[in-house]
Amino acid sequence: MKRLAFSSPTAGPDKCIFCQIALKRSPSSIVYEDEKYIGFLDLYPFSKGHTLVCPKQHGETIWDMNEQDIAELFKVAFKVSKAVVAAVGADGFRFVQNNGEAANQVVAHVHVHVIPVKMEDRGRFSERKRFTTGELEETARSIRAEMVQG
Amino acid sequence: MKRLAFSSPTAGPDKCIFCQIALKRSPSSIVYEDEKYIGFLDLYPFSKGHTLVCPKQHGETIWDMNEQDIAELFKVAFKVSKAVVAAVGADGFRFVQNNGEAANQVVAHVHVHVIPVKMEDRGRFSERKRFTTGELEETARSIRAEMVQG
Repeated sequence: MKRLAFSSPTAGPDKCIFCQIALKRSPSSIVYEDEKYIGFLDLYPFSKGHTLVCPKQHGETIWDMNEQDIAELFKVAFKVSKAVVAAVGADGFRFVQNNGEAANQVVAHVHVHVIPVKMEDRGRFSERKRFTTGELEETARSIRAEMVQG
Repeated sequence: MKRLAFSSPTAGPDKCIFCQIALKRSPSSIVYEDEKYIGFLDLYPFSKGHTLVCPKQHGETIWDMNEQDIAELFKVAFKVSKAVVAAVGADGFRFVQNNGEAANQVVAHVHVHVIPVKMEDRGRFSERKRFTTGELEETARSIRAEMVQG
């Protein structure tokens, strides 16, 4: 089967930032975790609460996963979406899952974007925001609280 | 649970264009179909081969579906992505799944966008293209051929 194009091949888990996050070797604001999946806040979010959900096992694109694991990945993203939307008081949300450099996939480790959107931000999907570590951690805490309740 | 905001509530399956397509009362260029899901070409595509995958049963957003059906929806989208990318010779693809009017969901019937992207079109994600019915049907035929082989 054709592989999706990346100009630089994956350097392996040791050099993959999302593997480092899953292994807790790099810090992140974690909102969800189980044996196989992890959800954490995007550092360059499109909105407050913008979360990435990943399999812990390294794979470049969704084509590197089997059907069962894809199903589980989106079940996790579904749960996370409810907590994220509740925590930030959004009016809607987007799942975005990019595969390959052509599709603007920046980190070559499978991930699903869960992007909450408020009505007043409608259409402004491409402006990256910056939050302090403290702000991110406060948002993550409120999402985790919703995950526990749900 | 909170519902996601639509300014006009769903008019019911009789007035839903995607229900009409699923029931074959409205024409579309179908690339995939089984008992519960249908995939057809977007009439206002971001790229050649841009496909929508829907559950046939009406629901406004993914929150109206159960976990098992969401898992199946993305399994279908996964299969469709392979056929679409092969048929149009893309270098990558995006899954985009919008929920609620705030998130630019236009048709209030759950759907997953499968958007193939070529390297030369990278970054030009928001230009809608128009193709003739004949062109759409030719693209759909080549995708169906890849579905059969896969």
